[in-house]
Amino acid sequence: MNILVTNDDGVTAPGLLALAQAMRPFGDIKILAPDHNWSGRGHVKTLDRPLRVKEVQLADYQVAWASDGAPSDCVALALHGFFEEKFDLVVSGINPMPNLGHDVTYSGTVTAAMEAVIWGVPGIAFSLGSVENGLAISDFAPAASIAQKIAEAAIQQSLPAGILLNVNIPLLAEDQIKGFTTTRQGLRVYRDRLDKRIDPRGRPYYWIGGDIPTGIPEQGTDIGALSSGYVSITPLQLDLTAYHTLPIIDNWQIDVNKSITNQLPGLNKILLER
Amino acid sequence: MNILVTNDDGVTAPGLLALAQAMRPFGDIKILAPDHNWSGRGHVKTLDRPLRVKEVQLADYQVAWASDGAPSDCVALALHGFFEEKFDLVVSGINPMPNLGHDVTYSGTVTAAMEAVIWGVPGIAFSLGSVENGLAISDFAPAASIAQKIAEAAIQQSLPAGILLNVNIPLLAEDQIKGFTTTRQGLRVYRDRLDKRIDPRGRPYYWIGGDIPTGIPEQGTDIGALSSGYVSITPLQLDLTAYHTLPIIDNWQIDVNKSITNQLPGLNKILLER
Repeated sequence: MNILVTNDDGVTAPGLLALAQAMRPFGDIKILAPDHNWSGRGHVKTLDRPLRVKEVQLADYQVAWASDGAPSDCVALALHGFFEEKFDLVVSGINPMPNLGHDVTYSGTVTAAMEAVIWGVPGIAFSLGSVENGLAISDFAPAASIAQKIAEAAIQQSLPAGILLNVNIPLLAEDQIKGFTTTRQGLRVYRDRLDKRIDPRGRPYYWIGGDIPTGIPEQGTDIGALSSGYVSITPLQLDLTAYHTLPIIDNWQIDVNKSITNQLPGLNKILLER
Repeated sequence: MNILVTNDDGVTAPGLLALAQAMRPFGDIKILAPDHNWSGRGHVKTLDRPLRVKEVQLADYQVAWASDGAPSDCVALALHGFFEEKFDLVVSGINPMPNLGHDVTYSGTVTAAMEAVIWGVPGIAFSLGSVENGLAISDFAPAASIAQKIAEAAIQQSLPAGILLNVNIPLLAEDQIKGFTTTRQGLRVYRDRLDKRIDPRGRPYYWIGGDIPTGIPEQGTDIGALSSGYVSITPLQLDLTAYHTLPIIDNWQIDVNKSITNQLPGLNKILLER
């Protein structure tokens, strides 16, 4: 098997090396990851500039490649021929923060796995249920071992087509983890607020600030599982259609021929009427 | 009503002004959009740097604000207090290219509407079913009129909670548009390939290139509707859980206590065994 390993924290992040090591028993691994942190930036396809890729050495023994593109660009580079190999699995992580609820579309870790699935390759995103920054590589060891077990199952049983797995692992010693559970996406509670400041030249600038998001730890959800000490496995699909609302919107019966502001013939008229 | 208008092509794009004008009959509009093109970059929350916002003048009469953040950042800025107003609706577009199938997670236009919904405000993304670049403002007039009708219906009937609308409008004169239809997300066919080139200093760089994506024009899908001359309205949800696969993955029965490579105790051991 050929396995691609990527992340959104950058190629030197300890969680990446931990995940790469954990995948070794299953085949040949290649690492291609961003050259800097892309956290909080979701699904990207860089078309307006070319991408650079450089070879780097991780620890004293692991060759890897770093790109100036997003995590999903790294996956595209790898799957479209940067390497000679065809890949059988793409794994992303281990992210040092959880990716729960609505985080999934913001997450470079998750959207890297999404990109793999779009190209027909199984993808799994791994995140650690911690809000700690600055975790050392040894802190990722239990999560890497968990990731290994999930990857083994995904390889043996094969992942349903068109599905990625979003895995969140509690930051606990392995013998304290209660088990694995499949979950649905839960409800994240963001607490962002705008922090307006004035720079030394008197001009305003704005931080998107606020407290770390919480979540509703409902049973059956990713947030609920993680807060109870379980590894959360959420299968995600790329079809976002809200099927249950189709009949509601069908009932709107919008009329093509009806005009709102007295036979609006087009934009020039709209401009005149301003 | 207070309506926020944004886009991913940048504040000076003609589709933005057309959409803003079309929203005028419904209330007070505010425009806050990126200061440059963000196409192909999905859901973003910029936390690692502050955002700047400057006032700009569109045409000779329309005040707008431009930010150096992503479309979803513009929505966050607006909803978290950049303006005094509380917003009742966020509209995004009109994008000069369609956003169909898997495009939705890559799309700045769609993820701006997604950001609104996360904060409890209805969001609608509007795109024009054209692959033409360089459309003039008058080319957006029929689409702006269509957008007006859809916004009117969404305001009158109210959008189901937690749902955004992804609207794709054919590039046709208004009397040639056959009608409105709700759709599900269709299957996009991407034709990306890697284009490796050598720079004047002998170093490689890589374009994600290839032909413009096509799609399978299946009936009932966004792609099918657009290719038949209908306005496609796809309700999207933020819950990506692939519910139908939960029982399959439950059956994997991963054992916490089982080790794969002979009782892997953690990463230090993995590293020693490399």
